Amino acid sequence: MVTGGPFRPGGVISLTTDFGLEEPYVGVMKGCILSRLPGATLVDLTHGIPAHAVPVAGFWLGRAWRYLPRGTVHLAVVDPGVGTSRPILAAEAEDSVFLAPDNGLLTEALRHESATFRHMDPGLPERIGLGPPSATFHGRDLFAPLAAELAAGRLLPADIGPAAEPADPAPLPEAEAEDDVIAGHVILADRFGNLVTNIGAGLLSRMRQPVVEAGTRHLQIEAAYGAAGANAAVAVINAWGLVELAVNGGRADRMLAMSPGSRVRVVDGTPA
Amino acid sequence: MVTGGPFRPGGVISLTTDFGLEEPYVGVMKGCILSRLPGATLVDLTHGIPAHAVPVAGFWLGRAWRYLPRGTVHLAVVDPGVGTSRPILAAEAEDSVFLAPDNGLLTEALRHESATFRHMDPGLPERIGLGPPSATFHGRDLFAPLAAELAAGRLLPADIGPAAEPADPAPLPEAEAEDDVIAGHVILADRFGNLVTNIGAGLLSRMRQPVVEAGTRHLQIEAAYGAAGANAAVAVINAWGLVELAVNGGRADRMLAMSPGSRVRVVDGTPA
Amino acid sequence: MVTGGPFRPGGVISLTTDFGLEEPYVGVMKGCILSRLPGATLVDLTHGIPAHAVPVAGFWLGRAWRYLPRGTVHLAVVDPGVGTSRPILAAEAEDSVFLAPDNGLLTEALRHESATFRHMDPGLPERIGLGPPSATFHGRDLFAPLAAELAAGRLLPADIGPAAEPADPAPLPEAEAEDDVIAGHVILADRFGNLVTNIGAGLLSRMRQPVVEAGTRHLQIEAAYGAAGANAAVAVINAWGLVELAVNGGRADRMLAMSPGSRVRVVDGTPA
Repeated sequence: MVTGGPFRPGGVISLTTDFGLEEPYVGVMKGCILSRLPGATLVDLTHGIPAHAVPVAGFWLGRAWRYLPRGTVHLAVVDPGVGTSRPILAAEAEDSVFLAPDNGLLTEALRHESATFRHMDPGLPERIGLGPPSATFHGRDLFAPLAAELAAGRLLPADIGPAAEPADPAPLPEAEAEDDVIAGHVILADRFGNLVTNIGAGLLSRMRQPVVEAGTRHLQIEAAYGAAGANAAVAVINAWGLVELAVNGGRADRMLAMSPGSRVRVVDGTPA
Repeated sequence: MVTGGPFRPGGVISLTTDFGLEEPYVGVMKGCILSRLPGATLVDLTHGIPAHAVPVAGFWLGRAWRYLPRGTVHLAVVDPGVGTSRPILAAEAEDSVFLAPDNGLLTEALRHESATFRHMDPGLPERIGLGPPSATFHGRDLFAPLAAELAAGRLLPADIGPAAEPADPAPLPEAEAEDDVIAGHVILADRFGNLVTNIGAGLLSRMRQPVVEAGTRHLQIEAAYGAAGANAAVAVINAWGLVELAVNGGRADRMLAMSPGSRVRVVDGTPA
Repeated sequence: MVTGGPFRPGGVISLTTDFGLEEPYVGVMKGCILSRLPGATLVDLTHGIPAHAVPVAGFWLGRAWRYLPRGTVHLAVVDPGVGTSRPILAAEAEDSVFLAPDNGLLTEALRHESATFRHMDPGLPERIGLGPPSATFHGRDLFAPLAAELAAGRLLPADIGPAAEPADPAPLPEAEAEDDVIAGHVILADRFGNLVTNIGAGLLSRMRQPVVEAGTRHLQIEAAYGAAGANAAVAVINAWGLVELAVNGGRADRMLAMSPGSRVRVVDGTPA
């Protein structure tokens, strides 16, 4: 068995789901992992992905995974098609391995990476001792055991199955740069009401003075939320290198009346 | 000291409470456990049980516990009677140990198991170095230290106290099967709006074509949520072996206008 | 290098934030910690602090920290001033170390402790290999790596920077005792609707029969929530030694129509 990448399992598994924490779904997955790999280190990225929001899960996993230790297995289960014939997709990127349903989640997460994709061999579950999965909880019946075997090093990425093209491309649209206008939109509002856009800072680099147009507001890029006055709107380059709209001490989603999908433009305030 | 069962502590403790995650109640319990057993493996089943919802806690613990490693101590604190004279109940089932207030939680969780129950000896806390508990937080003052001592193997299940009958029977009613009709009801709606019933798949085995009656709808059992059309209602046998009502891509609780307690029947669509 | 206190790092880090669990902010911080200290034990106190509610974070950290193992690093990030020039504050109290923005969080948490405070040397991040922080997420870029280095013992508290006075005093007002009247107020309503006040039990010790005045109600201190009748209001000394108002089986915040800031008085029902 040969693995195509430099993945060296370190016993760490990250978890990203839309399962929430009201029911023991996540705890049961962890129990399954720990039953197979007692010393596993489990890191919850988030279980608060909105129900069935595959693009949001892909977005956050894509932002987060590099901050986990090398050799982490990233398990992401947002799976509206559970129980249907949609395949299980594995990916290798750099020194990490990813597992998710093949529904656009991993193509979104790894859209900027050089990644190798594989479809799970349908015979694999039986070979690692798994029975037929339930109709509704493959996170428990398939994904958790597979992640444990990968994190334990008993299963190599190449053992998952043959190389394959993912079924769906990355679902989130990219911002478009044309002349001196960048046209993007809001991807999500976070817990603070901050509006994360799909406009990367790199697109702004040729502008002398980028001005963010959000609704009727024209905002310059500031160095911190607190650079604006109290309850004033502010644009920043956020921790993921994206243009973000916020309100200092308040909620931008409410004050700007914007939500996922709202258009945001950046123009050059003092063009050459 | 002799323990009645094959419990071999593995340093794993599962936690089920209605404490939520807004306040540090759960974190404090974990701190108490780790202070006594530094290498403990702590698995949150859920802390999102609705406040004081003992039957729901028992239901989920009953579904979840077998997926944890052997030798796990399962700690469940949903405790409206905290500070009153209600005893602490311990149970052994197979290779696992359970701790909870004696209020129906463990009888629900273990309703289908052969379990041994014990009431905590009131002198035990002092013997393991605990002071008088507070009026409001026995999870911290009694349950967490007891769980740590059990998980560490310093306390055996038999040391908890004498065998005892639990005060309350399992609180959730069972589905009733009569002739060719099974009468049950919705136990809970989960995060996805899926409606979990108390109708076990075993009850359906003698029917040629089970038809689920939910409100005005008549649904056949499908192999996956996705077997229904988009936004159509569907009945499945869920991951816990129970009849579950869902809407493919939507919320069954809203679309069917059903909630915990709503009646669900299963009849035989093509009787012999 | 000499550390001023008996801090002996044990590899345990507690986390208190207002980041919520919907986005992977907390998971990313944990990834950063585990990348530097693979065996770290991470304990979530809470990530459900209301957005920017520094006093609430300080209150809960102050109640919780003693229940964590000795040698814990307590990391608390509620940071409306992220990206501005507000310093990072470290504190030592007894055998524990604390890290937070210098905004009143730690002065609140340690208001009753003998603590040593330090401001982080601005050159420290570069010395431990950190690049320039982002504008919006110092939890990831500064706090998590610093906590990991402290928990690993590679950084001593005295290495953080020079002793300093915190910028802000403890933000929550103290209850006032005058003659035979104690005047306080509600600090917060917890998940159960229980109203936690700032009135410590010690203030009541000279009263023969303390009577809690809450709205139009006059309540005696009871030994448990369950000492009141069903759905009746009750006052107890809670697990943190504070007067708390509750409703047996219900929500005090709704039934008493009280919220953070509401006045509560305690008088002596049978003065000498």
